[in-house]
Amino acid sequence: MITSPHNEKLKLIRKLHQRKHRERTGLFAAEGEDLVQAADAAGAEVEFVLVAGQDVEPDLLDGVSELGSGTRIIGVYRQRWADPGGDLRVYLHGVRDPGNVGTIIRTAHALADGPVVLGPGCADPYSPKAVRASMGSVFARPPAAAELADLDGFKLALEQRAPTDLRDVEPSPPLVLCLGAEREGLPAGLDSQVDATVRIAMRREAPDSLNVATAAAVAMYEVANRMADRA
Amino acid sequence: MITSPHNEKLKLIRKLHQRKHRERTGLFAAEGEDLVQAADAAGAEVEFVLVAGQDVEPDLLDGVSELGSGTRIIGVYRQRWADPGGDLRVYLHGVRDPGNVGTIIRTAHALADGPVVLGPGCADPYSPKAVRASMGSVFARPPAAAELADLDGFKLALEQRAPTDLRDVEPSPPLVLCLGAEREGLPAGLDSQVDATVRIAMRREAPDSLNVATAAAVAMYEVANRMADRA
Repeated sequence: MITSPHNEKLKLIRKLHQRKHRERTGLFAAEGEDLVQAADAAGAEVEFVLVAGQDVEPDLLDGVSELGSGTRIIGVYRQRWADPGGDLRVYLHGVRDPGNVGTIIRTAHALADGPVVLGPGCADPYSPKAVRASMGSVFARPPAAAELADLDGFKLALEQRAPTDLRDVEPSPPLVLCLGAEREGLPAGLDSQVDATVRIAMRREAPDSLNVATAAAVAMYEVANRMADRA
Repeated sequence: MITSPHNEKLKLIRKLHQRKHRERTGLFAAEGEDLVQAADAAGAEVEFVLVAGQDVEPDLLDGVSELGSGTRIIGVYRQRWADPGGDLRVYLHGVRDPGNVGTIIRTAHALADGPVVLGPGCADPYSPKAVRASMGSVFARPPAAAELADLDGFKLALEQRAPTDLRDVEPSPPLVLCLGAEREGLPAGLDSQVDATVRIAMRREAPDSLNVATAAAVAMYEVANRMADRA
């Protein structure tokens, strides 16, 4: 039973709140029974798991928690990164919100056969908020990291100002759905690498944009269905 | 220029962090230039707007901010509630996360002609997090509050365990898309009020569920397109 806040495992968990320590060690922490179960189910490479009241005093586990009080279990795992292949992948550029990154990983796990590929300027998919938002999908379907230029396949960018409707393209695999930040979109330098740019049709008097995780989900759903219908 | 933290306007903004005070007063606060602009564009009923350095000392505005330091503008507005009519509405039951409620309001603004109808157990759409997640759509398209039994139209529930695929129904207006909490789904008592229950088709080895805002977006997109195609 760990009874000291200076314990090395507790110090490591606290360090893993910071991206630089996650990158340096290649590790990350997951809190809560759901995520620890998802890690087990996916065969994640576990460093250690601490259960409150069994391995560690509950107050000390709370002290290193990102979620706050009442944490019952925290596991530390080795990060995994996928190859960026697949018939339908999602490429993100400059998506800084970890909740959106995690939600897109969860949605891709449900709807796409390839991974989420993180380009420059994205939130760390192994940050506590992203892992939580992925609901464990980060274990079952690890993300990839690459530049758009390194990906093969047809590159379909989503931009709400594009004149072409998503439903007017005939997608065929392999395909990469490309999304940028909600305001900025994809940087101008990537335009030349993209094969087509489409928008999601919205109502008149609609807002300027959809949430990036919402847009990614709608596009994955539409493209996956169209590819299946044509297969 | 407000120079005292005991100023009545500042005290009101602080109170409006709490749901009970929002309900008691019928008011809510919106932070940041984007939201204040969205309020103006929608003709929201404004009580007052405070600009840092112009109406109030910046530190004092920071002190009542929900977003933390650097807040430049906070407006206080009267809540508006819509009638729960429309050809395509979204009914939420027990959706407790304000970010999801706000995101669904934003998505409905883009894709559905009717409002988001909040049933029992939902987060307050006028909480700071929900207003922020709505990106101002809460001004342009105010939510409604009602019980499912009070709504007319075909009631289509989304449940990932349902045997029927969303794409196998022929939706016709008026229609209500019904979603419950991510784990619990709709409560058993509502089953008898629902006309059909469908799932969003997912891949094998997919996660148990989608994020509720993601599921709502995919269903709105599919149903709105099908209704438009048939019209």
